[in-house]
Amino acid sequence: MGYFEKLQAAIAARQSLVCVGLDPELSRLPLHLPRSIDGVRRFLQEIIDATSEFACAYKPNLAFFEALGPAGLELLSATIDAIPSDLPVIGDAKRGDVGNTARQYATALFDQLHFDAVTVNPYLGEDALEPFLDYTDRGIYVLCRTSNPGAAAVQNLMVERDGEARPLYEQIALLVQSWNRHNNCGLVVGATAPVELSKIRDLTPELPLLVPGVGAQGGELAAAVMAHRASAPVVINASRAILYASNDSGFARSSATAARGLRDTIRQIQQG
Amino acid sequence: MGYFEKLQAAIAARQSLVCVGLDPELSRLPLHLPRSIDGVRRFLQEIIDATSEFACAYKPNLAFFEALGPAGLELLSATIDAIPSDLPVIGDAKRGDVGNTARQYATALFDQLHFDAVTVNPYLGEDALEPFLDYTDRGIYVLCRTSNPGAAAVQNLMVERDGEARPLYEQIALLVQSWNRHNNCGLVVGATAPVELSKIRDLTPELPLLVPGVGAQGGELAAAVMAHRASAPVVINASRAILYASNDSGFARSSATAARGLRDTIRQIQQG
Repeated sequence: MGYFEKLQAAIAARQSLVCVGLDPELSRLPLHLPRSIDGVRRFLQEIIDATSEFACAYKPNLAFFEALGPAGLELLSATIDAIPSDLPVIGDAKRGDVGNTARQYATALFDQLHFDAVTVNPYLGEDALEPFLDYTDRGIYVLCRTSNPGAAAVQNLMVERDGEARPLYEQIALLVQSWNRHNNCGLVVGATAPVELSKIRDLTPELPLLVPGVGAQGGELAAAVMAHRASAPVVINASRAILYASNDSGFARSSATAARGLRDTIRQIQQG
Repeated sequence: MGYFEKLQAAIAARQSLVCVGLDPELSRLPLHLPRSIDGVRRFLQEIIDATSEFACAYKPNLAFFEALGPAGLELLSATIDAIPSDLPVIGDAKRGDVGNTARQYATALFDQLHFDAVTVNPYLGEDALEPFLDYTDRGIYVLCRTSNPGAAAVQNLMVERDGEARPLYEQIALLVQSWNRHNNCGLVVGATAPVELSKIRDLTPELPLLVPGVGAQGGELAAAVMAHRASAPVVINASRAILYASNDSGFARSSATAARGLRDTIRQIQQG
């Protein structure tokens, strides 16, 4: 079973498009937990146990684990193992390097850490992504239009190609469509850019989307939800808004409430 | 002392523009060494000892260490410590993520691993790089025109901005110039694209360059060497051509010969 089939099954089983982003920060742990690797381990285990009923996927971001040093990588591996096996795990790594090196990153992410899907950066072009694309049973989400305030200065630059002018992010979407020979590609499009999101959905209707930027980043939810197709699923990620819903001993319950709330809001939008 | 001062001092002391890329692969280790973390450790230690006389910098690429699992990260840290302290160490990480996450990568690379400089990806824009740029004593090399065959399909796209049409990589060079408030930015430009390299040097004459792609990737050396300025140094990286010059018990001597040969070829070009 490929990644997107696993994702579609999880969406159907949980009736949820919610992806829970796992971005652990020592300084934001619940107050009663030790500010240590072990504290993070207990925090993430409780978060996963409390939210997995409402989530279709989890997305650990590697930066937060790397910032904890080598023990952080061991913890990342343990965290992946703690996620229910029917829920896909997306490694938010945003890697991109030349071919020989990209192969090493693909090994690290797919063979060492066993992610079901990863995020990658398109700036280096197709041959830099090929070692990822060759894993036909995994998902590769390519950054297209990111959720941060400075994204537009690069990604909305107007590009001329084959006599047509388009913003760079649209051109990237078209390139990813052409690289999608194994039907294992998707796009990362921030909920903070709803106009761009709708345009991308129209331009490349068959590409699945990973949508960060709701919650703490304040993106609009409706455009993301409306872009969902059974054949080209949209997963909507919230990290801080779920993880850090409260910082007292009832934190896991608060996180569950936040995850369920997001799931229900999405359902209401879907039911129109 | 900032990174670029340290680099300039190393260039002056060694009379060399050679950066030795540390990309260890188990399958390419000298035949008499064990294919294990310990084998890689002994390999890299001997390489460093044999080549440091001819190098102005070292550049470990994180992918190769991550592919070895958590122990690979411990090895990376030990490898950095094994490099003579007067030679700067560039972490080839090509990271790029939204602000809150980029801060974690900056912590991992600058505070945990103590790199003097890193490579980053410009696709997410300025706010994604700000957490790196805030380390005013470190160097930040931003990918501009990479050395791989597929780079042009993205980086040479024609972009229109302020009424002027330019390839994307030139636009990125101009953006990096505008982000360089702390004089700690440089550009990554592959030796495989000598025409683009010369154009970038003319467009942004004050930005230092990191030039991969000579040696195994077959780039042209002359354009890179001619771009060197005392005030905007060019470091020329070779990885496989030095590391894997031979795979018998005399491998370190072969690597030293390859590094010295590249240093001398560069000197000859400089002397015209």
